[in-house]
Amino acid sequence: MVADLSRFLSRRTEYTRVSIVREILKIAEGREIISLAGGLPDPASFPKKELGEIAKQVIEQHGDLALQYSPTRGIRPFREELSRFMERHGIPAKPEEILVTTGSQQAIDVVTKTLINPGDTIALGLPTYLAAINTFRVYEARFLGIPVDEEGMNTEVLEERLRECKSKGVHVKLVYTIPTAQNPSGVSMSMERRKHLLELAEEYDFLVVEDDPYSYFTFEPVEYKSLKAMDRGGRVIYMSTFSKILAPGLRIGWIAADKELTDYFELTKQHMDLHTPTLSQFIAMEALRRSVIERHLPRVVELYRRKRDAMLSAMEQHFPEGSRWAKPVGGLFIFAYLPEGIDTYKLLPKAVDRGVAYVPGNSFFVDGGGRNTLRLNFSNPPIEKIEKAISILGTLFKEALDR
Amino acid sequence: MVADLSRFLSRRTEYTRVSIVREILKIAEGREIISLAGGLPDPASFPKKELGEIAKQVIEQHGDLALQYSPTRGIRPFREELSRFMERHGIPAKPEEILVTTGSQQAIDVVTKTLINPGDTIALGLPTYLAAINTFRVYEARFLGIPVDEEGMNTEVLEERLRECKSKGVHVKLVYTIPTAQNPSGVSMSMERRKHLLELAEEYDFLVVEDDPYSYFTFEPVEYKSLKAMDRGGRVIYMSTFSKILAPGLRIGWIAADKELTDYFELTKQHMDLHTPTLSQFIAMEALRRSVIERHLPRVVELYRRKRDAMLSAMEQHFPEGSRWAKPVGGLFIFAYLPEGIDTYKLLPKAVDRGVAYVPGNSFFVDGGGRNTLRLNFSNPPIEKIEKAISILGTLFKEALDR
Repeated sequence: MVADLSRFLSRRTEYTRVSIVREILKIAEGREIISLAGGLPDPASFPKKELGEIAKQVIEQHGDLALQYSPTRGIRPFREELSRFMERHGIPAKPEEILVTTGSQQAIDVVTKTLINPGDTIALGLPTYLAAINTFRVYEARFLGIPVDEEGMNTEVLEERLRECKSKGVHVKLVYTIPTAQNPSGVSMSMERRKHLLELAEEYDFLVVEDDPYSYFTFEPVEYKSLKAMDRGGRVIYMSTFSKILAPGLRIGWIAADKELTDYFELTKQHMDLHTPTLSQFIAMEALRRSVIERHLPRVVELYRRKRDAMLSAMEQHFPEGSRWAKPVGGLFIFAYLPEGIDTYKLLPKAVDRGVAYVPGNSFFVDGGGRNTLRLNFSNPPIEKIEKAISILGTLFKEALDR
Repeated sequence: MVADLSRFLSRRTEYTRVSIVREILKIAEGREIISLAGGLPDPASFPKKELGEIAKQVIEQHGDLALQYSPTRGIRPFREELSRFMERHGIPAKPEEILVTTGSQQAIDVVTKTLINPGDTIALGLPTYLAAINTFRVYEARFLGIPVDEEGMNTEVLEERLRECKSKGVHVKLVYTIPTAQNPSGVSMSMERRKHLLELAEEYDFLVVEDDPYSYFTFEPVEYKSLKAMDRGGRVIYMSTFSKILAPGLRIGWIAADKELTDYFELTKQHMDLHTPTLSQFIAMEALRRSVIERHLPRVVELYRRKRDAMLSAMEQHFPEGSRWAKPVGGLFIFAYLPEGIDTYKLLPKAVDRGVAYVPGNSFFVDGGGRNTLRLNFSNPPIEKIEKAISILGTLFKEALDR
């Protein structure tokens, strides 16, 4: 009712972009649509029976603590369990090097808020995770886009660009990367490039954000090591989440980094939400203690591998000649490059009309590229719907090429 | 391990203050200490049996939704319940005017992030809630401190200061206030001043943040109306929390404001943590539906009234002559003004040595005042401990005066 609210808004509010994914989901709401646009796990993968039991016990037996305020850092016994969980997956982090966050979205926000001044430079993949880009924008970061190919972020190009920046007196503060089963490309970074990236971090004095939601469940055995495990200089800020390995509705993520840095992150988080819900932490802790997650993961892997394979073979069958994509070893997405000339952003309303939603790939490119790309989610829809949706999209794209 | 991390930190990190309350709690950790420093509810007030049952049912029967990602705004049926709950307490807000937040700390952060540019002016009480001050500092706000007396924030003084600001071309964007049972002072704003504040908002074109954690459970019947209920101009940004009426460990807070403003808040929250934990929302929604909260509140009121009264009479008995305090109609705190010359900040280590912690009042004054004040929590400790602690403090303060 206040006329012209704009004079009350902060500068950063201008950078708060509407998420295209969420806008599509809104348009699609209530319509009979197959959404390949989201990043939702399959609810069939939630261990509901175990979690229901755990929640009841935790509240009845430990409610005085589980329902109470708790430390910003995260409750200590949970951080101890997390530390052991990471260790079992070859990623070293002491409990005092861990900060529990309200989902890994908050991990990205905390790190950016703590480190980035307006105008600071962040290097990231072309393409890279949309929600990270949007968060960086809110803090008015500048971007250095580095091509991602079949071996992940091209560190040769990164090195060139770092050299250019240095010669211009520009300090690249952060490199943001999802080394394993990158979102959106599905590509994993080769071991050579991982090593190279860490060497460059020392040489050019930057910190590395390793966003790792997917390495705990890969569809094939992989030999990748996490950057955190290879880090000798304390430069890697590792983050992950329970959203894909247990349940996103708990909003449990975490950061593992150099202790002094983690102390700063804790201070930043304190005024953001005091702490992550104690109850969610108790539930996740008990799920770890009772091996619910580790018993549960092979089922998730099996479920998602079948869905991925169904989507891949439907794409083989229906997508126009000249299309290409990587076969992801993990994650929830396949990212497709269509023949030049197809504009997936412009075609989206037509696709929605025919009952299918996807995310136009160009929102993942900070340089405005990728107009012929799109991201497809295979974790959420049932296999029949994946096949139907891909067939509809294939037809649509072929028609667009013919015109 | 990275030498000199400071070159990686953002400017705002300098403003991220360590919370004194939390530092005291850290010092006190593991020691036999009576803490009057925190703001923790009494865990005896948590309806553990009901919440344990609700959590189990919600996960087993609605787990596909309750464990899944959900909209940034908050799940719709929960916002409908919230709207009805507020209405029962005389505070009007439609579901679409509500944003669910991860505790009311996030509500403060979202509002500040959306509205405040570095250098913008916020008017607030002398004293006022410490965590709000700290959040405002992170966004580099300037402060206009307005005295709080026995009728709440002095709106006559506010008017004078607004006039001065206007004549200097300074636009005061926000007035932050906790009208009922203010934290820390315990004072409630009179109805006359509430009306005056809203008139000033129109005249001087500012928005009002009404932080209202306490009005749902007052120890005596009160005739105050919420600012939100009196607001005709759409200028009141109302916020509250389930932390005191149900359980803080769920981290459920909310904002209710003009729809367009709430849309901006939603965009800001989106990149902060995507959404508040779905499970916490389902549990709080069911607690509302089953009237757990409304059955539960009279017990909380009874419990806290007894504790408040025990603290008040111990203070009468033990605190030095010339001390004064307001009798709070709600909330968790009593705020004491000691005779001039007593420095509660300097005396704190001595108090901790003798086994009692409190919050020195001067951290609640943005003008550096209040060195002779302190905030005392009565909700958490048992009555015997309240009495013992107040007696120890009384002795300490009298000794300090004698010297």
